[in-house]
Formats: sequence, C-alpha cells, structure tokens
Amino acid sequence: MKHFVPLNFARQLVLLAWVFAISSAFAQSDPLPSWNDGSAKQAIVAFVQATTDRASPNFVPPGARIATFDQDGTLWVEHPMYSQVMYCLDRVPAVVKAKPELANVEPFKTVMSGNREAMAKLTKEDLFKILAATLTGMSVDQFQTETTAWLDKAKDPRWKQPYTQLTYLPMQEVLQFLRANGYKTYIVTGGGQDFVRVYSEQTYGIPPEQVVGTAGGTKYGYDKDGRPFLTKEPRLLLNDDNAGKVEGIHLMIGRRPYAAFGNSTGDREMLEYTKAGDGARLAMLVLHDDAQREYTYGPANGLPESKVGTFTQALYDEAQNKGWIVISMKNDWKRIFAFEP
Amino acid sequence: MKHFVPLNFARQLVLLAWVFAISSAFAQSDPLPSWNDGSAKQAIVAFVQATTDRASPNFVPPGARIATFDQDGTLWVEHPMYSQVMYCLDRVPAVVKAKPELANVEPFKTVMSGNREAMAKLTKEDLFKILAATLTGMSVDQFQTETTAWLDKAKDPRWKQPYTQLTYLPMQEVLQFLRANGYKTYIVTGGGQDFVRVYSEQTYGIPPEQVVGTAGGTKYGYDKDGRPFLTKEPRLLLNDDNAGKVEGIHLMIGRRPYAAFGNSTGDREMLEYTKAGDGARLAMLVLHDDAQREYTYGPANGLPESKVGTFTQALYDEAQNKGWIVISMKNDWKRIFAFEP
Repeated sequence: MKHFVPLNFARQLVLLAWVFAISSAFAQSDPLPSWNDGSAKQAIVAFVQATTDRASPNFVPPGARIATFDQDGTLWVEHPMYSQVMYCLDRVPAVVKAKPELANVEPFKTVMSGNREAMAKLTKEDLFKILAATLTGMSVDQFQTETTAWLDKAKDPRWKQPYTQLTYLPMQEVLQFLRANGYKTYIVTGGGQDFVRVYSEQTYGIPPEQVVGTAGGTKYGYDKDGRPFLTKEPRLLLNDDNAGKVEGIHLMIGRRPYAAFGNSTGDREMLEYTKAGDGARLAMLVLHDDAQREYTYGPANGLPESKVGTFTQALYDEAQNKGWIVISMKNDWKRIFAFEP
Repeated sequence: MKHFVPLNFARQLVLLAWVFAISSAFAQSDPLPSWNDGSAKQAIVAFVQATTDRASPNFVPPGARIATFDQDGTLWVEHPMYSQVMYCLDRVPAVVKAKPELANVEPFKTVMSGNREAMAKLTKEDLFKILAATLTGMSVDQFQTETTAWLDKAKDPRWKQPYTQLTYLPMQEVLQFLRANGYKTYIVTGGGQDFVRVYSEQTYGIPPEQVVGTAGGTKYGYDKDGRPFLTKEPRLLLNDDNAGKVEGIHLMIGRRPYAAFGNSTGDREMLEYTKAGDGARLAMLVLHDDAQREYTYGPANGLPESKVGTFTQALYDEAQNKGWIVISMKNDWKRIFAFEP
C-alpha cells in the first residue's frame, strides 16, 4: 500500500474525520444523563478528565485505571434485606428436605414457619447458620445452577421486579463512563463472591474475575465417573468487609484503586485506602435519602441503625472532612431505575 | 458526514485494504517462530483455530477465553533453585541485621555462613522459616521496593543474566499468540503472588491482577501520619500448588481455563481440571530434557527427584493416556532464550 498515494491521502482524511466525529460526540453527549447537575456529577466528570488527559499532571496510564464498587446499596437495592439473604432463606426448604432432621432445629424451624415477624428477629449467628447450610456443601457448578434458577424467578416484594433489574441507572452510567475511559471496573462486596459472579457480567458488564467478595474455600474431588469438581466448603478465606475489603483488593487486584464507591461503614477503609494514594482519587458514598423513589434509612438520615448498610453520622462527618463525596439519591439522581421513566 | 459520499466510499476502500492487509499478515507470519514443526506446535495452533473460528463447533466467546500458566519451569528457569528462594536467601543478612538475635539461630546461622553445601541440605521446614522471615512483616509497598531492587541487580549464576531475562522465548510466543486471539493469560504459580506480581507485567505482559499465586493475609493499619497501609502477615490464605491451583483459579478467576501449561506434578490438577471441561481444551507440560541448552532433571528423564519441579514417570504416563501434550525442550524448541541466537 506504500505507493498508492491517493488511498493514503484518503486514509488521512478518513482518520481526521473520525477524530473530529469522536471528539465532538464526546463533547456533545452527556455520559451521565440520569444525574442532575451538581457537585457529585461534576466530581465524576472532573476525575475522569484529570486521570485520562495525557496533558494532565494527574494522568493515569490505562493499565493502572482501577475503580472499585461496593454492590449492595451502592449498585443495587439492599433494603429491606440483601438479595443474597433472601436467596438463602428461600433455599431453606430444599435444605430441610434433604436433611429432615433440621426441621425442628433453630433457626431452620423459624424459617420453615414462614413467620416473617419471627424471621426478622433472627440473630447474626442464626443467619450465619443459614448461610453455611445454603451456600456450602454443594459443587460450584450446582451452586451456579441453583442461583441462576432463583434469580430467574425471584422478585423484589416492592417493585415486583427481578432483583437484577433493581440496579441504579445512574451507577450503571458511572460504570460505563469509567470503562469507556479505560477503567477496569470491579465489584468489591461483602456479599458472597460466588453469588455475585453468577450475574455480574449480564447485570453490570463486570466479568466474574472482576468480582471480589466474601469467599470460602473449595475442595477438589472426583465424581463417580472420575471427573474432577470443586465443593464449596464452610471455611472462610476472605471476609470482604471493612478492612477486609482492602485485603481483598490486595489479594485479587494487587493495586490501589483510583476510584471507590460505597454506601456504608463497611466501605470506609476501601475509600480511605483509595484516597490515600497520590494524584487524583475519587471516593464516593451513596446516601439513601429518597423515601419516595427508593428508601430512607440509617443514622446519617437521623434514623435508627438498619439491618443493612449502616451509614453512620461519623462516616458522614469523615466524608465531609476528607473530601469523600456524598451522593444524595434524592438530589443527585434524576432517575433511579431503568424500568421507571 | 452522511452526505459526503466520496469520503464514505474512500473509507470503505481503506477498510477493505486494511482487512486484506491484516488477514494476509496473519496467514503469512508464523506466530510461533521459535518452535520446531511438530505435534506440540500443531496442537497449539489447532487449539487456537478451533476455539476462535466462529464457524467451529468448539468456538469459545472472547470473554471465556482463559489460559493459565505455571511459572517456575514453565515460563522461566527454575533450576537449580527457584528465583524466589534465591531472593529469600539473599534477604537473610538484612533480616539478621534488623534482628541480631537470629544470627545464632538455625536456619539463619547456616545461611549467614555462606556455606553452599550446608545450605543445599536445608529442610523444607527450614525453608519455610526463611520464607516467613523474609516475605512477611513488612508493608506491601516496602516488599515491592525490596523485590524490585533485588531483581534489578541479581543475576543467574549460569547465564549471568537478570532472572527476568531467563524466560523461555517459545512460551513468550505462546502468551502473545493466545492474547492476540482474545485469550486472557494468567500465571497460576506455587510461588508467592506478591513476588511474581512485581515483574509479571514487564516480563510477560501479564498485569498483577492476572497473577494467582501462593498468598498470605495482610493487615490494615496506619503509619504515624495516619496514612493507611497493609502489612504482609505470616498467615497462609492460599497454597497455590497441586489441588490448590484449582482452588486458586476458582477464587481469583471464577471460570475453568480452556488451556493450561505446567511442568510438574504441582500442575497436575490444574491440567486435569482444564481438560475436564467440554469442547476443545489444551493441556501441556514442559519437559526439561535439554542438558546442553538448559537442564535435564526429574524422574521422567530417568533422573532422581529434584528440589524443583518434579516431573514423575506417573505424570508422564498420565499425560500420554489423557491427551496432555508433553513439550520436549530439546526437540520442540528452536530457541530457548531471547538473549541467545
């Protein structure tokens, strides 16, 4: 092609036209259309500009562009109960069917009674017993099959939507905006790693290997035909919450994020660690202050501690003092869900 | 641009020319020039074709294209001793300087003596003590600084080259060939995850988050200025060897690889698990049978067990029976190192 001058010239023209088309498209289209104009939206756009513009003193090379997102309460609805806990409760009948001796043992007895008031009073210890019984002991493939089947039919009681539809549209836009700018997006969740990995790709465009979560050990073995498989064991490898989130980031990613998003004290250390890096770093917290369109809960709203996502007043004050940005669902988000207008 | 017909036409021409240029470049150039023609090379090329051709019954969508590589003895030289063990031995004087009471305690006393014969007799238990003392107790940043400094100056005793130059050129070509065909390449090593991550990107083009290795816990804390940091703890999270490699793959990747490469019994389960998946799967073992250009060692060569990378006769037989392909360094590799002609 070296000697075909007209084509070379044409190619230059085409390239030039493309460059113009792309940059004007970027300038004209709003990458965060579900966000109201305000300091939160501006902070996101400014962060992306500062870290991706080669002329910027805070330019970050593409390989190092890591952004981490808590899931429950940050990317999707967590109130009144984590979806994964709903899954575990729904699995109890099958577990009791397989092991009938559990029917008269607490906390399984209470769950089997279907008495919602009694279930709401289950302690953390009770819940751990239910989690262990419903999330371990099966092969990883079997777990994936069971979870997929549940997600296909389970619906949230308020919106009557599958749980995977209850993701926040503004946060989906942030995920896409960051990825379009060379960021690798990770979920860093206190929830079960295997659970979230089942739907992360389809729901968030985040592949399984970019989900860091609470993880148990697995055991290698063989089925009757000599085929190898992994069994999920009730042995905790990583408690991916609070400081454990930073440990999980080191274990699974090995680099400090440039941006981190959360909504509770369980995300505190992840945000602190992210902001402690040099250059431009972004730390954001979603505040659930929209009782009408979603929920209002937690001490930062002057309400009692909730069973999910505790956003304390101390965390709110720390955010103010340290330049972590609080996202008000009520004021910053134009739309909350894709299924609503 | 919609109405600028000549430019649209020119663009079509340019695209067409590119498509031709790219496909003919692919057809003409050998992606594995350091490999001799033979069944090993053919197997790699056939696997890539079978899994990336959309018309193939074994087509694999890009996101699922995962390939895992053992490191020591598979991607670089491991004989006569793992580089990481060399690092640990070299770190002992600094550790003893910081804690003088260790000078008269075994195994540190033997290492400080510099007596190579005595050092060669150190037991596995001795080695674990040395690993714990030299790989934990510091911050992850400090560890990275120390490792980088060591890698910059340490040289292999035989070739007088930095360790990172002792990678196998044919395997580098496999990494690149797979990546060029949409595969995500991972290192899955019995070596320390933090250690390998320091140089994996520069040495293999594999980013830190795609290195799965033996990993310890970390502890979150604060320095005197209140800045958070992680300390490496002597608490084993993942023993990434044998069945632990499959556990590591599930923990860090969450999907079954389509191709796996190893060189010892420590890689057996990873290869077995990979091959047990459906469709086209590739499992390969590097056999160190080239005493002249590299080393010959291990029972599969009729030699006694070595301190590194045991390739037993049983593993060799299993490979023959199960369609795992043994790569003969002597016969399959035209060149071994990039620094040699």
